[in-house]
Amino acid sequence: MLIVGGGFGGLYAARRLSRDARVQLTLVDRRNFHLFQPLLYQVATGALSPSEIAQPLRSIFRKRPNTTVLLGEAESLDPVRGEVGMSDGGPIAFDTLIVATGVRHSYFGHDEWAAYAPGLKSIDDATEIRRRILIAFEAAEREADPVRRAEWMTFVVVGGGPTGAELAGALGEIAKDTLRRDFRSIDPTQARIVLVEAMDRILPPYPKGRSASATRQLERLGVTVRTETKVVGVDDRSVRLEVDGVEERLPARTILWAAGVQASTFARVVAQATGAETDRAGRIVVGPDLTIPGHPRIFVVGDVAAQPWPGHDRPVPGVAQGAIQGGSYVANTILRRLDPASTDTRPFRYFNRGEVAIIGRLSGVTDIPWLGPFGRQGGFAAWVLWLGIHLAYLIGFSNRIVVLTRWAWSFLTHGRSSRLITGQPLLPPIQEPEPPATHDARPTTSAGPDVAPEAEPAAANAET
Amino acid sequence: MLIVGGGFGGLYAARRLSRDARVQLTLVDRRNFHLFQPLLYQVATGALSPSEIAQPLRSIFRKRPNTTVLLGEAESLDPVRGEVGMSDGGPIAFDTLIVATGVRHSYFGHDEWAAYAPGLKSIDDATEIRRRILIAFEAAEREADPVRRAEWMTFVVVGGGPTGAELAGALGEIAKDTLRRDFRSIDPTQARIVLVEAMDRILPPYPKGRSASATRQLERLGVTVRTETKVVGVDDRSVRLEVDGVEERLPARTILWAAGVQASTFARVVAQATGAETDRAGRIVVGPDLTIPGHPRIFVVGDVAAQPWPGHDRPVPGVAQGAIQGGSYVANTILRRLDPASTDTRPFRYFNRGEVAIIGRLSGVTDIPWLGPFGRQGGFAAWVLWLGIHLAYLIGFSNRIVVLTRWAWSFLTHGRSSRLITGQPLLPPIQEPEPPATHDARPTTSAGPDVAPEAEPAAANAET
Repeated sequence: MLIVGGGFGGLYAARRLSRDARVQLTLVDRRNFHLFQPLLYQVATGALSPSEIAQPLRSIFRKRPNTTVLLGEAESLDPVRGEVGMSDGGPIAFDTLIVATGVRHSYFGHDEWAAYAPGLKSIDDATEIRRRILIAFEAAEREADPVRRAEWMTFVVVGGGPTGAELAGALGEIAKDTLRRDFRSIDPTQARIVLVEAMDRILPPYPKGRSASATRQLERLGVTVRTETKVVGVDDRSVRLEVDGVEERLPARTILWAAGVQASTFARVVAQATGAETDRAGRIVVGPDLTIPGHPRIFVVGDVAAQPWPGHDRPVPGVAQGAIQGGSYVANTILRRLDPASTDTRPFRYFNRGEVAIIGRLSGVTDIPWLGPFGRQGGFAAWVLWLGIHLAYLIGFSNRIVVLTRWAWSFLTHGRSSRLITGQPLLPPIQEPEPPATHDARPTTSAGPDVAPEAEPAAANAET
Repeated sequence: MLIVGGGFGGLYAARRLSRDARVQLTLVDRRNFHLFQPLLYQVATGALSPSEIAQPLRSIFRKRPNTTVLLGEAESLDPVRGEVGMSDGGPIAFDTLIVATGVRHSYFGHDEWAAYAPGLKSIDDATEIRRRILIAFEAAEREADPVRRAEWMTFVVVGGGPTGAELAGALGEIAKDTLRRDFRSIDPTQARIVLVEAMDRILPPYPKGRSASATRQLERLGVTVRTETKVVGVDDRSVRLEVDGVEERLPARTILWAAGVQASTFARVVAQATGAETDRAGRIVVGPDLTIPGHPRIFVVGDVAAQPWPGHDRPVPGVAQGAIQGGSYVANTILRRLDPASTDTRPFRYFNRGEVAIIGRLSGVTDIPWLGPFGRQGGFAAWVLWLGIHLAYLIGFSNRIVVLTRWAWSFLTHGRSSRLITGQPLLPPIQEPEPPATHDARPTTSAGPDVAPEAEPAAANAET
């Protein structure tokens, strides 16, 4: 058996299958780790470090000798021969295939925006966003011109779904709380954070009351929530918005994309090879047992599939729970098929465990249908629930301890200890022709009574 | 006052100076964090995560309103005007300057080797080395040809100083212990790790007995220690060695450079602007008070300086202690000068606190002169001492807790949880023309009695 993709769908299928000695399993991923996506925005905002939310796939399966983990990228599929072709090695044969390759960003046909407005799907995305956020404050600190400084201090998050709302909330917390005392020329609490959403409210999967609660909590953190606002242009210094058909330009140096996703590239390969249908987002349309119609040995689970949700006019939402349940269902189906006596053909049934998002420190919103009115919490209760759920699902015991330590410490100190600028560390070169202001590191008399420059015996440069 | 560089020298000077209200201080660094270099090899070998050994400079100085932290790269110096020019902004004026810009790798005139044999100085170096080590095992797992597989399984560390010895020891532990059960086609314990040193023994700053002890401990981890062996060539698939004038070629895909350092680029700028002498490694020769002769307001501390060590035929060694003591001395000298009554001109005196290196799990060597015979430990005692000292000097309380948790967990589970391949995740394309072997994920009868392929009802591809 072959699983392509070690996200939630692939991982939970592999964990269930690898416990059965009758199974020989190969798990292929482009990365050597499982990434706990729901906490990725915390890496992007400096609260956690990449390896704290990632676990090497090999170490997860080290005690399962029937499971082989391979690093590689699937690029073709031959359903007749039962082979998946790899971009960097020989093909891998399978009898049963589980496709769980997930989604990537969608810029709605404007791929040129990607350079200016990075999305948040991978560890590299998260460290790049972290770099841009931190560089923006650093550049503002060194910028004397108030107009250019304001551009650096403006952050736009495009997309009011859970990722966008959590990202905007974390930015609000960074500006209002974490960096409050870190700078000398700028006041981080004056940063402008704008959350842009095309629909009439943020967090569209939640009930209306929850959206309103989230909006209030974001506004308390200084975030401007702009609904019914479409993004029609992005460049390196601004985003162009359209409200009621009227365009406006919002100057901003940091633009983050949380607006849309489309199925991974491999989904198109699978659709072409099998004749499967895809929906508007490129997701593969699967039958009630999550197989591709006409291909009972090819399962598709998680975000890359349009997993059916009977009784709803849309597929299962693209959240971790949908992928986890899809992966577990497929593993159980495969194991049942190993038993020749079994005639069980029960379909996939998604159980909506509910949704929880946090918005800054000590607040958040929940929507947990099966808890009835109890399931609709806001503020502190939602925040506590969120912490518990995320710790419980995080893979790896040491990661749980470390993340708990980080969170406890951040909570007590109002700090974020993973604020590293890696990669290109330096500010972009100043483009304007006018000479930049000289920063003076010498003590000046205007610096207050504590400063006593005359106490320094050689205030005149002794070496001149 | 201006400090260029936030390593040990710059940081300890800044911490001391910033406690004095008479001081107005600016600290400039190319990075926004202080890096705890002695643990960098643990990031390179997947034991720790980058942010666990780095602390944002801003958060260190957030409670010192007299201290301004700026992100930027110094590129010129005007000692007459008292200005440091920046590559990405206006110049910064100073009355007193502390240069603490450290060192970078030296390939002894063969800069073309850098692409094949990365060194270990920055976080980005460490994640690149980590990527190469992990990719090598992944590639070996997928490589069917035994010769090419052996190339992937050979790791060469060039340079037998503390960094090289610790890196080789960690590689030995990874192969013999951490990855032991992680692979299905290869046996990681068969990896070949070669430590190459041009002198007649490794760890040359230690006494001879300690070098012999370290060699024995490395050999127990499966490391081949080759002394009196010079590297005369490096390419993408091998390293060329010279022993007694005879050349040999050692095929290896992973070559790590821990052989030499030279002063940072800014050292040359400072030397040219001030007329300071530099030594063979480009380090600035300073007077007994760590100023540049003729420039009493320009101090140079840490690895970038050849700090005098009276009674020894070489300058203070380029270790953290040398920089910490240099930085603290300079800060105290500057503060004394603020007091017009002070005539104290005591010179810098280095106190050798000793050296400790660990070699794999539960073992290491120490050389602590002031403890007498007690100061020469090997094995477990050295390992415990090392843990304590490194935790004590690590900056940031939450980092200490997190690192302690990681170490305890790694120790108990024999694991390394930060084994992430980030950046380019994929294997290099296969260059050879012959078709690679097909990996078969189907159950086969040769896989043992537990495997029951006939139990799968549609072993023939149902979709054909």
